[in-house]
Amino acid sequence: MPDRSSPIGIFDSGIGGLTVYRRLLELLPNERFVYLGDTARYPYGPRSAEIVKRFAVQGARFLLDFDVKLLVVACNTASSVALDTLREVSSTPVVGVILPGARMASRVTKSGRIGVIGTVGTIRSGAYKREISVLAKGTEIYEVPCPLFVPLAEEGFFDGEIPEMVAHYYLDGLKEKGIDTLVLGCTHYPLLKRVISRVMGNRVYLVDSAVAAAEETADLLSLKGIASPERSGEDILYVTDAPERFRTVSKLFMGYPIDNVVKIEPFL
Amino acid sequence: MPDRSSPIGIFDSGIGGLTVYRRLLELLPNERFVYLGDTARYPYGPRSAEIVKRFAVQGARFLLDFDVKLLVVACNTASSVALDTLREVSSTPVVGVILPGARMASRVTKSGRIGVIGTVGTIRSGAYKREISVLAKGTEIYEVPCPLFVPLAEEGFFDGEIPEMVAHYYLDGLKEKGIDTLVLGCTHYPLLKRVISRVMGNRVYLVDSAVAAAEETADLLSLKGIASPERSGEDILYVTDAPERFRTVSKLFMGYPIDNVVKIEPFL
Repeated sequence: MPDRSSPIGIFDSGIGGLTVYRRLLELLPNERFVYLGDTARYPYGPRSAEIVKRFAVQGARFLLDFDVKLLVVACNTASSVALDTLREVSSTPVVGVILPGARMASRVTKSGRIGVIGTVGTIRSGAYKREISVLAKGTEIYEVPCPLFVPLAEEGFFDGEIPEMVAHYYLDGLKEKGIDTLVLGCTHYPLLKRVISRVMGNRVYLVDSAVAAAEETADLLSLKGIASPERSGEDILYVTDAPERFRTVSKLFMGYPIDNVVKIEPFL
Repeated sequence: MPDRSSPIGIFDSGIGGLTVYRRLLELLPNERFVYLGDTARYPYGPRSAEIVKRFAVQGARFLLDFDVKLLVVACNTASSVALDTLREVSSTPVVGVILPGARMASRVTKSGRIGVIGTVGTIRSGAYKREISVLAKGTEIYEVPCPLFVPLAEEGFFDGEIPEMVAHYYLDGLKEKGIDTLVLGCTHYPLLKRVISRVMGNRVYLVDSAVAAAEETADLLSLKGIASPERSGEDILYVTDAPERFRTVSKLFMGYPIDNVVKIEPFL
């Protein structure tokens, strides 16, 4: 049975979940984390809900073996289609990134016009729209999939003409809708924050689902009385493929490279 | 035992192999094809050689069960790292896309300065460089990975400002090297031919590895005397995930949508 000194598990399709891990580290310095990135099969964004569920269950089972006290699903795509399934197989509470992001957007909006951007899988699921509609009745929600944003972020195109042109392509229509709040519904998108903000203008509030999920995790720990009083050990980050690439690209997401990356057998 | 009426197997990481399938259909109208696209785990481009080998062996085993007379590995990344492994497990001849493309480039070049573009995995493997160096000694070979080209092609960005700017980013350096031949070392790149050609100028010959591989397959069939005198049935295309997306995107690759797409259990 997990107790307050048990680690928190973080599941992601690959590397994007590091934006969530980073926020968790900032907010919860006494907690210990075990991260799993399914780099052998990322990205989940273009895949079917059915396969994302199966992949996510395999990943969750791996993390549950560490006796985690909480399971954070850092991937928006997995959160949007697999959360119910994960709650069925998990003996421990499961936190996704959708509801925290939806909550923050509902709190922040004044005009009641909210934009949501994400992967094809996340947008197709309608998960953000569903949650926001319940939390803030009568809001108008405009959803746009931005499939090129993930490869741009992973290749380090954070700023400059190329990402700016792509951002205009995806976002100009949203801007015309007069939204005052935009949910960055994919863990990679905070890396493109500057260019997204430039295109949307500084009157549009950008909701970072990583920040929102980290805050919700902290709340849940104190609510349940299972926050750790001190760090019980080092974090470990597991990947199913290419740990070197993970180490290199982690710098883009964390600001510094991560060393304790361990490759495990992929789920074959 | 396969005979001349047996089908030809085509293995690809996903949908890109359709450019090879299309050329094979044009060149070999009497042959029957069984295609497998591992859409549950594409793209292979950023993955490690080790995992690509494992995925490719699983795919090849599936196709070998159809008693194929020939196995075409349409994916450049898989061809560049897994061909030897596939030949070990395959009872039937295996054709990759690297050697045909390298041969065509070696034949075509006059200046002896050849460029190769491909995924990170293909370029890191050095497979094209190795083959071309053997075929045409003394040639200078310049290799550049172009990781954004695959997502651009899959999202239908074939022409216009965005792909043109990305093409300049990747190719301007190659142009300065004064190459006269450029190998499109990824099955997706023929879709960007127009924009690549505009950036490189019309004096640079673009080697389409799909065309080269189809010609080599035709040669091999007649050499071995196993060409089919007439079509023995309909083709079937198998995918490990999201058949609807495959059908939709197939239009971009084939010019028409493919209907006979069947989803199989992924290799979990």
